[in-house]
Amino acid sequence: MLERIRFENYKDKIITATQAALLFEDGMTIGSSGFTKAGDSKAVLPAFAARAQNENIAVTLITGASLGHTTDSDLAGAHALNKRMPFQVDPVLRKEINKGTILFIDQHLSETAELLANGHIPAMDYAVIEASAIDENGYIIPTTSIGNSVTFAQLSKKIIIEINTSVPVSFTGIHDIFLPGEYPDRKIIPIVKPCTYIGVDYITVDPEKVAGIVFTELPDSPAEVTAPDEKTIAIAAHLVKFFEKEITAGRLTQALMPLQAGIGKVANAVLSGLSKGDFKNLTMYSEVLQDSTFELIDNGKMNFASASSITVSNECHKKILNNFDFYKDKIVLRPQNISNSPEVIRRLGVIAINTAIEFDIYGNVNSTHISGTKMMNGIGGSGDFARNAYLSIFVTQAASKDGNSISHVLPMVSHTDHTEHDVDILVTDQGLADLRSLAPRERARVIIENCAHPEYKEELRSYFERACEREGHTPHILEEALSWHQQYINSGTMKKASVLQTI
Amino acid sequence: MLERIRFENYKDKIITATQAALLFEDGMTIGSSGFTKAGDSKAVLPAFAARAQNENIAVTLITGASLGHTTDSDLAGAHALNKRMPFQVDPVLRKEINKGTILFIDQHLSETAELLANGHIPAMDYAVIEASAIDENGYIIPTTSIGNSVTFAQLSKKIIIEINTSVPVSFTGIHDIFLPGEYPDRKIIPIVKPCTYIGVDYITVDPEKVAGIVFTELPDSPAEVTAPDEKTIAIAAHLVKFFEKEITAGRLTQALMPLQAGIGKVANAVLSGLSKGDFKNLTMYSEVLQDSTFELIDNGKMNFASASSITVSNECHKKILNNFDFYKDKIVLRPQNISNSPEVIRRLGVIAINTAIEFDIYGNVNSTHISGTKMMNGIGGSGDFARNAYLSIFVTQAASKDGNSISHVLPMVSHTDHTEHDVDILVTDQGLADLRSLAPRERARVIIENCAHPEYKEELRSYFERACEREGHTPHILEEALSWHQQYINSGTMKKASVLQTI
Repeated sequence: MLERIRFENYKDKIITATQAALLFEDGMTIGSSGFTKAGDSKAVLPAFAARAQNENIAVTLITGASLGHTTDSDLAGAHALNKRMPFQVDPVLRKEINKGTILFIDQHLSETAELLANGHIPAMDYAVIEASAIDENGYIIPTTSIGNSVTFAQLSKKIIIEINTSVPVSFTGIHDIFLPGEYPDRKIIPIVKPCTYIGVDYITVDPEKVAGIVFTELPDSPAEVTAPDEKTIAIAAHLVKFFEKEITAGRLTQALMPLQAGIGKVANAVLSGLSKGDFKNLTMYSEVLQDSTFELIDNGKMNFASASSITVSNECHKKILNNFDFYKDKIVLRPQNISNSPEVIRRLGVIAINTAIEFDIYGNVNSTHISGTKMMNGIGGSGDFARNAYLSIFVTQAASKDGNSISHVLPMVSHTDHTEHDVDILVTDQGLADLRSLAPRERARVIIENCAHPEYKEELRSYFERACEREGHTPHILEEALSWHQQYINSGTMKKASVLQTI
Repeated sequence: MLERIRFENYKDKIITATQAALLFEDGMTIGSSGFTKAGDSKAVLPAFAARAQNENIAVTLITGASLGHTTDSDLAGAHALNKRMPFQVDPVLRKEINKGTILFIDQHLSETAELLANGHIPAMDYAVIEASAIDENGYIIPTTSIGNSVTFAQLSKKIIIEINTSVPVSFTGIHDIFLPGEYPDRKIIPIVKPCTYIGVDYITVDPEKVAGIVFTELPDSPAEVTAPDEKTIAIAAHLVKFFEKEITAGRLTQALMPLQAGIGKVANAVLSGLSKGDFKNLTMYSEVLQDSTFELIDNGKMNFASASSITVSNECHKKILNNFDFYKDKIVLRPQNISNSPEVIRRLGVIAINTAIEFDIYGNVNSTHISGTKMMNGIGGSGDFARNAYLSIFVTQAASKDGNSISHVLPMVSHTDHTEHDVDILVTDQGLADLRSLAPRERARVIIENCAHPEYKEELRSYFERACEREGHTPHILEEALSWHQQYINSGTMKKASVLQTI
């Protein structure tokens, strides 16, 4: 106990999760640590979900990003949420969001802290923040993520600290806490390399605001790392080939530029693909450190990785803890408004690799909405990176479902998260479209020929050619532009031919 | 002459504009100074247009932003352009762009310099840069804009300097030239206030690259300042009232935050509106200094204004020159990758006010394309500012044309330049929608009730309610989403009722 709470005045603040959850009142706004399943509240939020099962109570919940375990499911299932932001990946919560019963604000991950600090989102009543320990000043030593915890601790009226004893007390030296301060005297964020340390390794809290300390021993839920499949291997291969060509052209070195990769199997496959290429001294300036990051460090390809969380498989988690002294000086965790800061991303020249749900023949990308209406997860940090990156890359499969009934390359996206202005490279398992210095009509040809699935190329060419007959910088046939989505909703396939045959 | 060329080695480089234009070869890439009609090439580019009238020759032309006089018209009319970027406002050029005969790349104004520096756009063969004079080292003293000239001078293989004798040699002390350097060692841009000077007042050139010096005495073409009308006055009044409420709520002071305003009569009306409100110590961190900027300085409301160009009426131009000592320490011109830098915009907390062509009930904004296809001007700097601003505000009229046949508030925008994530406040002559901390379904109600024209409210409500019956985070009826634009194209009005009557 003593090694976990080194601040005398907190000793009488230890309460149970159930007691902590009773502090919340209907209509309150709650902040919680947690970024891509790492460092989230594992005791208080679940206890609140249990309380809400038997009580008519709901709150607004703001986190870093997605929560782990079944917390979002449990909260959504118990009708304990009025509003949720800035990101989620939970199937039960997603269903309620799409029914409109829980309101969701889909935010750039760098912006939640900004909106809170500027008073554009009302301040939190309580913040729940996971810690490995509390230091001599009553400050929080964070665990596997930092996320928005620094801002929550600063702005929340009251704080509940969740000490997680599954995280060793030795898990320190990898946190770099810095906030740029308040307007109108905001400070420069002086990061000039992914490895620049600019702050302290604890989260400052006002001890007076600490309403309770809760203990838990539940570890982070592990990342599900799926093995690369034929499509993700093909995507990775196209991208590795592209990087090699850029090196040959003298625009990149073997160290590339600092990498950012979205979460999931495509991103993991791409990073794994880099292990096989002729790269060295790679660095990462990203949101999440995944299994593939540690693979690159292990095989000597990557020197340093900066992010806001560590979200890895159980196996990788064990490896990190067992070899912590080896990894300690090769990784850093930062607040998400620093890891995703436009200022730093442009200064470092990040290569941003993110996953699209679909993109169109002009290079507009939909990252969030199925058929323009249903929220999948949220934009996450993809916008923070894509807009300010040295290279903005989006990847997806060319077609999916039985019989390739869905084309992910479309005449017009049904929802736009990233505009043509912010997209340099598109990659599918079919190939890579390099859109740099191309006008929309040039982009369309390259995207259709390089990225579309062969079964959809002819239809896309037809659309584009007929649209061009009507004129326009970005030629479209408005009455047909969203018809592929409509047809999928109505008939279960985007294929024109198969529809004709079945009629 | 001596006071205009203070570098001995250039004395034999003086040529005519016609001679300079003969240096260009078919297929070359040419860079030219010029940002919103200020400081553009007034001799060499027109001479090249004249040459191309009688010759089969065309180039790629990259500028800061729009050119003045009839230069873009003349070039487009003479088929002298293959490709044009990053912005234009010219009717003849626009027509060719929409026919697809001239390829246009619509770029964020901060990014052109990045793309050039990174080699993502091929380097220029020639750069034409306007100067008021050449200093003792052969360096350029710029005139009324800086735009991309610093990058052009640095990267172009050859340089032609256009000395404009209509600009007094005393027109100095307002330029602040700074480039952040090359990857991987990019420097911090150390601006912490709009008035921070961080560089030098000349554009460095390698004298060896100077291929010719041309004289001109043609002044910048003047801005057309239209008097505020009923609608723009209403928009300005809604916005001033909003700012006053923010001050009352303690989120802003009477100094607001540094202002950015797009070009045109709405922006001018809004800034003029601030003259009447209870504001003081205002500052500007924007792209263009317009008549309204100098009005605010004149009446003591504004302390300092930073931008990349001065684009004003003839009358205001005279006022500035006649009182240059008064204005000199209150304004600064910067390269457009600094004036529009994401880093600085977020650090300063800019309030960004830009004009929309249309927006939808969820807050997505179209700034560029008429009916999703035809390019108007380009995104300009609106994306640089909207994404990183303290507050991102978009303004437009609720309805326009005879009988209000066009609604500018729509079920779905026909083209997205700014996504819902990047839009905080929408204003029309009908009212203001404050979208902060609202989810899509909440946004729709506020936008329809506050911003839509009364003649379209019922139809928008109907669309939204019927869309909600289908579920979805962002409810849409795909087959109807773009039908308002389709109907306008087919029948000349977006009004459902009037169509029914005429059938």
